[in-house]
Amino acid sequence: MSEGCNAIYPTNDVQPEKTMKRVFDVVVIGAGPAGEIAGGRLAERGGKRVAIVESHLVGGECSFYACMPSKALLRPQEVLAEATRVPGAAEAVSVRVDAAAALRRRDRIVNDLDDANQLPWLEARNLELVRGHGRLDGERRVRVADDLLIAREAVVIAVGSGAATPRVPGLAEAGAWSNREITTTNEIPNSLIVLGGGVVGVEMAQAWRSLGSEVTVIEAMQRLLPREGPFAGAELEEAFEVHGIDVRTGVEAARVTRRDSSITVELEGGVRIAGERLLVAVGRKPLPTDLGLETIGLEPGSYLEVDERLRVRGLDWLYAVGDVNGRSLLTHSGKYQARLAADHILGEEVRARGDGAGAPRVVFTDPGVAAVGHTLASADAAGIAAEAIDLATGGTAGASFHGRGARGTTRFVVDLERELLIGATFVGPEVADLLQAATVAVVGRVPLQTLAHAIAPFPARSELWLKFIEAYERRRDQHGLAGSLHTDLSGPVAVAA
Amino acid sequence: MSEGCNAIYPTNDVQPEKTMKRVFDVVVIGAGPAGEIAGGRLAERGGKRVAIVESHLVGGECSFYACMPSKALLRPQEVLAEATRVPGAAEAVSVRVDAAAALRRRDRIVNDLDDANQLPWLEARNLELVRGHGRLDGERRVRVADDLLIAREAVVIAVGSGAATPRVPGLAEAGAWSNREITTTNEIPNSLIVLGGGVVGVEMAQAWRSLGSEVTVIEAMQRLLPREGPFAGAELEEAFEVHGIDVRTGVEAARVTRRDSSITVELEGGVRIAGERLLVAVGRKPLPTDLGLETIGLEPGSYLEVDERLRVRGLDWLYAVGDVNGRSLLTHSGKYQARLAADHILGEEVRARGDGAGAPRVVFTDPGVAAVGHTLASADAAGIAAEAIDLATGGTAGASFHGRGARGTTRFVVDLERELLIGATFVGPEVADLLQAATVAVVGRVPLQTLAHAIAPFPARSELWLKFIEAYERRRDQHGLAGSLHTDLSGPVAVAA
Repeated sequence: MSEGCNAIYPTNDVQPEKTMKRVFDVVVIGAGPAGEIAGGRLAERGGKRVAIVESHLVGGECSFYACMPSKALLRPQEVLAEATRVPGAAEAVSVRVDAAAALRRRDRIVNDLDDANQLPWLEARNLELVRGHGRLDGERRVRVADDLLIAREAVVIAVGSGAATPRVPGLAEAGAWSNREITTTNEIPNSLIVLGGGVVGVEMAQAWRSLGSEVTVIEAMQRLLPREGPFAGAELEEAFEVHGIDVRTGVEAARVTRRDSSITVELEGGVRIAGERLLVAVGRKPLPTDLGLETIGLEPGSYLEVDERLRVRGLDWLYAVGDVNGRSLLTHSGKYQARLAADHILGEEVRARGDGAGAPRVVFTDPGVAAVGHTLASADAAGIAAEAIDLATGGTAGASFHGRGARGTTRFVVDLERELLIGATFVGPEVADLLQAATVAVVGRVPLQTLAHAIAPFPARSELWLKFIEAYERRRDQHGLAGSLHTDLSGPVAVAA
Repeated sequence: MSEGCNAIYPTNDVQPEKTMKRVFDVVVIGAGPAGEIAGGRLAERGGKRVAIVESHLVGGECSFYACMPSKALLRPQEVLAEATRVPGAAEAVSVRVDAAAALRRRDRIVNDLDDANQLPWLEARNLELVRGHGRLDGERRVRVADDLLIAREAVVIAVGSGAATPRVPGLAEAGAWSNREITTTNEIPNSLIVLGGGVVGVEMAQAWRSLGSEVTVIEAMQRLLPREGPFAGAELEEAFEVHGIDVRTGVEAARVTRRDSSITVELEGGVRIAGERLLVAVGRKPLPTDLGLETIGLEPGSYLEVDERLRVRGLDWLYAVGDVNGRSLLTHSGKYQARLAADHILGEEVRARGDGAGAPRVVFTDPGVAAVGHTLASADAAGIAAEAIDLATGGTAGASFHGRGARGTTRFVVDLERELLIGATFVGPEVADLLQAATVAVVGRVPLQTLAHAIAPFPARSELWLKFIEAYERRRDQHGLAGSLHTDLSGPVAVAA
């Protein structure tokens, strides 16, 4: 907050009419990644005067309670596991993560929950940070405690999402952790029960297992990571067994009881699992409560539906970006939406198309799961005649050196009619950065006949692309399609001569 | 070799006319990766009867003396270096590679120089392996010792390349190593001199430094990796200094002398460098000598010039794939060419376009260098108005966890007129698999306006793509181009809804 602001509106001003009205071009509610990007882009590209309202920490859930601390906790185990797969390096490593060092690193990543490091970014862009809870107060008006912020042009809502809590008897009273507690604690419980086998659940299960806890994961669906291709969850579960993580799928928690420092989860069917701590990671819930939506005739409590311009209900002044619109609850999708919303406010025509259910997604476990676009199931649901090309992620010469011996499947999903790649899922060690090539191919609709000319370097794991092309060619031959993929002569290929 | 073959032509047949004539559809000379792929594809896709001639080891230079053993030697150092960058893992590792274990792993990778493991692949495809030196003997005829192989359709030459030796007085008598000796030795010399700072030179320098040798690299050009963007060699040199590798650039070797177990390289200017061993890694030389080229009216001794169908001199029966044609001396380029040549022999129209000078290339050092397409210099030479977007490879949130704190630049080269990515170079730790996304974008000519919708996952290092788009947008704004990259509304974008 600027000094001037404090000087003009002293907070000890208690006169009857105490509303302080300030005018901006745009008011952004929520200073997580999506809000920051929206505000920053408006200021930087458009020279707009922007206020950004934050009730908790600038940087948001992602920086302090999700993506960032979780990766600080997962990476040591990931790289040590990889080192033990490399003869010549394996002899030089202990497989034990140094828990204290990992936790210290996590503390540094989240800056001990102080957002001071985030502020220079806002300041450099002249964003006016308003601390407090932002609430709509009619069209283009945002109230933050006694402040009334007027938005000449637009209001952008970017308040994120919260951890969902399932209705399980006893859970509310059990003192369970959410992502917020588990990503910030210094406690390494002897035993941890994780309710939910989605991304947060499996990441935290592995992180805390690597730090020394006994971990049990309970997932109501038939497998871990139920939204991904079925092999992903199955292969992760297999790896979890090797790591000594107890996985229970296809079963719901029926009751939770707490006695002293022990929490017991009773499963349907009567099995009881006891642990020192319980993490609830069953998904996210919409956060647009207490946002003053009713002052503009909207219902609170559900995700804010937006159009392709990220506008709420087609209103020309109200945008919602990030988790709050429910399109794709991922930091990178929120950042993408923020860019587009900002550009639209700046008068450009945009259409969000990269952030659907098929937006890129990475689970940073070991093996990791990285996926983009369609799974076979989602292609089927979309009425696309698709086929899966399944490969062993470790089936390249490159995998003799990187990810050696690790199991995991890579699936390419092909639209047979158009001969296009419409999705890919990589399961294996350190697969996060294998994904971008698939994203470019899918989003760019690069024909398979062109991909056949995109040579993968030897011996790198990217030769999965060559294996994919070869396997698809065999499928093609079986289908009786004439010619090879190379017969594309005019396609756009441009490697320097 | 099939039993039947031996039975029909017993090798103890010593009659005056001892030539044994056998007829195939295609004869491939050279069973390295390119020859294997060409032969295998002809047999598998086309049902052709193929002979493959090999004078040394099936699997070729790549499998036994280049790509594969070098990676076995480099990977331990790479992964240990990465582990030491990760708090929580760093405490669990020693930075010393276990040299004996690394050498044993190398031995296993090259199967103790026995190609037995390569044979089942040939057998599964019914390729007839003919051991011996293959030599053309007129059109569609290949002589291997006393065998005459008749190729009904085509001959494919895939004999690779050899290590070049510069003309330096004393070098020939100094008992220097080439890539063959250094990739297979079990000796860890106290001191190693590497003549040549190209790919082989820098990879072997780092590998043997990590195994314990004192290493000096001598490069005549002004920098290491002279074919890549200048920052690549400079950044690698900087890292080499940290590793304790002595790098001398811009200076030629004037004389080499050997006394007992010590080799001295005298540089121009008089500086002398002594070492126990000397590796010559100044590049490759063409191998089409003693190939019988004169029997079809061709000059021996230089790379075999081919057209886009990989045909030598437009002859309809003679193909050259891999290093021997000099297009791009890389295993993956050879494999690509082999696929195309095979398809052309099978009657399909093809055009090799992915394997030019801009073909993907990776140097597996730490930091590694991975590049595709144009450098700024090659774009300039090609008359393309290009601009470089330079980023810190470590400048993403993902790099807080992977490659943390390591230096290195990522350069995206953009054709300003067409707004296309025409090249990319990544310098940093473990960058090999970052490359494929760039290759797909370059080869697929994916417009930047579409790339702006190819969301990179957070927090992965692939967010370099977001940083690239953002930086290019700023450049674009400076150039006064209207609109943002998002204004592409009709472009091909297809993430599952």
